[in-house]
Amino acid sequence: MDISLLYFFDLFGTAIFAISGVLLAGRLKMDPFGVVVLAAVTAIGGGSIRDMMLGATPIFWIIDNNYLWVILLTCLTTLILVRRPTKLPWYILPVCDAIGLAVFVGIGVEKSLRLQDSMMIAVLMGVLTGCGGGIIRDILAREIPMVLRSEIYAVACIAGGIVHTSALYFGIDSSPAFLLGVVVTLSIRLAAIRWHLSLPTFQLKG
Amino acid sequence: MDISLLYFFDLFGTAIFAISGVLLAGRLKMDPFGVVVLAAVTAIGGGSIRDMMLGATPIFWIIDNNYLWVILLTCLTTLILVRRPTKLPWYILPVCDAIGLAVFVGIGVEKSLRLQDSMMIAVLMGVLTGCGGGIIRDILAREIPMVLRSEIYAVACIAGGIVHTSALYFGIDSSPAFLLGVVVTLSIRLAAIRWHLSLPTFQLKG
Amino acid sequence: MDISLLYFFDLFGTAIFAISGVLLAGRLKMDPFGVVVLAAVTAIGGGSIRDMMLGATPIFWIIDNNYLWVILLTCLTTLILVRRPTKLPWYILPVCDAIGLAVFVGIGVEKSLRLQDSMMIAVLMGVLTGCGGGIIRDILAREIPMVLRSEIYAVACIAGGIVHTSALYFGIDSSPAFLLGVVVTLSIRLAAIRWHLSLPTFQLKG
Repeated sequence: MDISLLYFFDLFGTAIFAISGVLLAGRLKMDPFGVVVLAAVTAIGGGSIRDMMLGATPIFWIIDNNYLWVILLTCLTTLILVRRPTKLPWYILPVCDAIGLAVFVGIGVEKSLRLQDSMMIAVLMGVLTGCGGGIIRDILAREIPMVLRSEIYAVACIAGGIVHTSALYFGIDSSPAFLLGVVVTLSIRLAAIRWHLSLPTFQLKG
Repeated sequence: MDISLLYFFDLFGTAIFAISGVLLAGRLKMDPFGVVVLAAVTAIGGGSIRDMMLGATPIFWIIDNNYLWVILLTCLTTLILVRRPTKLPWYILPVCDAIGLAVFVGIGVEKSLRLQDSMMIAVLMGVLTGCGGGIIRDILAREIPMVLRSEIYAVACIAGGIVHTSALYFGIDSSPAFLLGVVVTLSIRLAAIRWHLSLPTFQLKG
Repeated sequence: MDISLLYFFDLFGTAIFAISGVLLAGRLKMDPFGVVVLAAVTAIGGGSIRDMMLGATPIFWIIDNNYLWVILLTCLTTLILVRRPTKLPWYILPVCDAIGLAVFVGIGVEKSLRLQDSMMIAVLMGVLTGCGGGIIRDILAREIPMVLRSEIYAVACIAGGIVHTSALYFGIDSSPAFLLGVVVTLSIRLAAIRWHLSLPTFQLKG
């Protein structure tokens, strides 16, 4: 697919996820360094694990520093904007997060298929790229990762990843396959936010 | 040693550890995705860190997807079986876990010796393969890793790993050395379960 | 810079950080294995992540086992010394920790510049080498990493790393640049300990 468009989406997703890290850091009363670490971990954590597992080292943000600059700039901007709070409608953040998520899943699928052939691994790397950062963020913040407990979050990623790889498998070009996957992830996620959908949880006594 | 036998043991250990992840996920009321993640992390987490540290990338389950299929199948089977609870004797699970642990230590020793020479590192990689997954599982579940606090768990791995590498050092063939290590780890672990053995803990005030 | 001097500093920093891990394990009533794991994670955790991200695998302590021996010896010595408690002045430990931190930042900068060119990445790898181990230690001990919440800790590392790389950039030799960075990190850290300095924290409601 068009490299420059993919790259733009990637940096956009990085910024979105960085914001979610900053906001959590704010609730936990962290100092500015903690804010930047939590933002960075959320934004590039999933992709870092993906690259280390695939052996694509040095990992992506070591090769291309723009990811780090985007994170730093996002932190600064968020910190400044939040100091003079403008009332945002409640849905702005989850919707942005859903966009970032959908893009990151697609990017994980794309990048892993450049390095190996398995469709199953491609879907898994997509999910890891999308959800990994949030899981590390929640570990650092000492919470049971939200992704593991509730809502149609990971399921949206899996569905988007499967549609993306299936489209490639059936010969659809790289760009439309990517967009198809993004649309599926995003739609499911937005529906889950709008109607508070969640999977039944599995429960044991003991 | 006989590759196909080692491979069978490896997949068996993967299934056993996946079950222990599923059962913890059940206690924490996770959704199906959380169940699969906790199962996968327990089963392949230790080996993944081992491979990344050794530079054996792409790591093993990216190259051979059978590990992932075993985990998925184990999750499905466990979820179905647990819904119609048959009373299992209490010792079934710890004993299975001990078998998985003993096998994983041996596999970690074997795999690391193919990539480097140090006996000390081989023992350490055996312990990491055996205990690593459980540690990550406990971090995700927000518990202080059990392995770090109680029982003769890691000590059994260390003893098994030392016996395994010593046997190799004294010229014993790969297969019997592997089995010797497995027997040692397993015996110590079973004895610890049977008689509730544990090491004295180290305690500081402050 | 003089390799043997750098190596001495590196092992010294390893021992210092291992002690801080042992002391935390003592507060958490861990068994001897838990003590060694917490010590090891604190001492070599940051460098391990650095090497995996840079693709410098097998990572450093797999190639050179001396790091592991230093950790084992430090654990033994600390456990023995602590059993017959001699009253140490309160400032001994934080000061030692500050020395270890300053050295590790310099080593992270040095090692990463051997593998890639970016100054920004070099500073970041210095900070990661210095702070990473403590963060993993706190995760295992189920605490919100101290580094993320309080005191001029990471900021001292960043300042030291920037001075170190800037000195190299302006043509200063490797050894004096290293020492300059160490002195800056150490001075800021010691000042923060002495006068209880900390950054203002960022706080959000919700």
